[in-house]
Amino acid sequence: MSERPLILVTNDDGIHAKGIHELVEVVQLFGEVVVIAPEVAMSGMSNAITSDKPLRVQKLSEDPRLTVYKCSGTPVDCVKIAFNHLLDRTPDYVVSGINHGSNSSISVIYSGTMGAAVEGCLHGVPSIGFSLLDFSQDADFSKAKIFAARIFQAVMDNSLPKYTCLNVNVPTGSPKGIKFCRQASGKWVEEFDKRIDPHNRSYFWLSGSFINFEEEAKDTDIYALEKNYVSVVPVKVDMTCYETLDSLKNWKF
Amino acid sequence: MSERPLILVTNDDGIHAKGIHELVEVVQLFGEVVVIAPEVAMSGMSNAITSDKPLRVQKLSEDPRLTVYKCSGTPVDCVKIAFNHLLDRTPDYVVSGINHGSNSSISVIYSGTMGAAVEGCLHGVPSIGFSLLDFSQDADFSKAKIFAARIFQAVMDNSLPKYTCLNVNVPTGSPKGIKFCRQASGKWVEEFDKRIDPHNRSYFWLSGSFINFEEEAKDTDIYALEKNYVSVVPVKVDMTCYETLDSLKNWKF
Repeated sequence: MSERPLILVTNDDGIHAKGIHELVEVVQLFGEVVVIAPEVAMSGMSNAITSDKPLRVQKLSEDPRLTVYKCSGTPVDCVKIAFNHLLDRTPDYVVSGINHGSNSSISVIYSGTMGAAVEGCLHGVPSIGFSLLDFSQDADFSKAKIFAARIFQAVMDNSLPKYTCLNVNVPTGSPKGIKFCRQASGKWVEEFDKRIDPHNRSYFWLSGSFINFEEEAKDTDIYALEKNYVSVVPVKVDMTCYETLDSLKNWKF
Repeated sequence: MSERPLILVTNDDGIHAKGIHELVEVVQLFGEVVVIAPEVAMSGMSNAITSDKPLRVQKLSEDPRLTVYKCSGTPVDCVKIAFNHLLDRTPDYVVSGINHGSNSSISVIYSGTMGAAVEGCLHGVPSIGFSLLDFSQDADFSKAKIFAARIFQAVMDNSLPKYTCLNVNVPTGSPKGIKFCRQASGKWVEEFDKRIDPHNRSYFWLSGSFINFEEEAKDTDIYALEKNYVSVVPVKVDMTCYETLDSLKNWKF
């Protein structure tokens, strides 16, 4: 008897977020599901790992088709402890999300959702991070779920190259289709909102707005999303800038 | 009168680590220095940012040539708040480290030291992360400082392409020279050390060992370090896997 695929699900918005429950519903169509997610929101945790304090893991429910854990660590910690300790076989896929809010362009480097997907592909498993461009807690994931199912099916059919995962972002409303794109060059322009606490000490809230460095480009994730397409960017773990490597070899010391 | 360069220094081992004090000594040779570092150790914090709690910043000392702050946030938070709030002019360089321990190969994606360097280059400033392959608190940085000075001088002479920073790792002992390399393909094989607390609840310590996936390759940072050279890898912020992007365009939905 052939085993159904084992699918590991995580996120960075935490075990109680709506988006992860929606993603579980999608991938249950395709296989057996194990969920392990942070017990609290871990947005912006990137590829962070926890080595200076111990991790706690608690099983919340168990079912032949769906087992759920929460973990005190980061999204990457969740993936690591699942592969190395919790699961009795290597999962066939890792999916992360559905994130409440965009992880397009440079946000990929800050995103805990994508941190978990990168960690999944480092373990040699096809991995996908899904995000919806809506930060609200009760966001409507109905269209995002349909596209997540289509993309998950395509990954099952085609697999992915080793050490490469997908960064999928879904616009709100009714997306027109799917575009494969590159990461737009852009950055967050931060503003720090300075306030004074009741003890007369200052503190700062990080806020900011996104700037797209290449508004004319039509092959970026930002462009696809602006045109109401789902953007799919293949993300690799090799951060070497090969073009620069060639020119560095001319440096004199 | 020409201004001396302004150099922003940060790290992930925290303001009290030996390595950052050694790096300050190096870059003071080249310009005016502002230090802002996490108030506690933030190893493994990657590109993490803090948006769910406010940040505290405290000036520890001020001098025309050296101003020092500590910050409650991550290394990336430190860089962001320096550029956006603390500094009255854009720094000319960002340097991070000297890290106690290696950030070669895949460790680049987990490293807070490199997170800060990546953030510096995203702000359009030549940025370098320095690491010494010695985790000990009282590591001997004397050789690393000499190489850091040589590499900093070379960056001043040659600059760096936009949105690209350097990941510099220094072996212990007496390095034979400097090699420009690519990031080795490898991963951490984690083990979780399971223990029981006095209240009979389990907890886990993350530990692990590194596996090099390409031991034969001679153009990687791991190889250079094994041969007792300082490795310098140019790191870019565009994580798009362009090779995969071409093949994805053949997918059918």
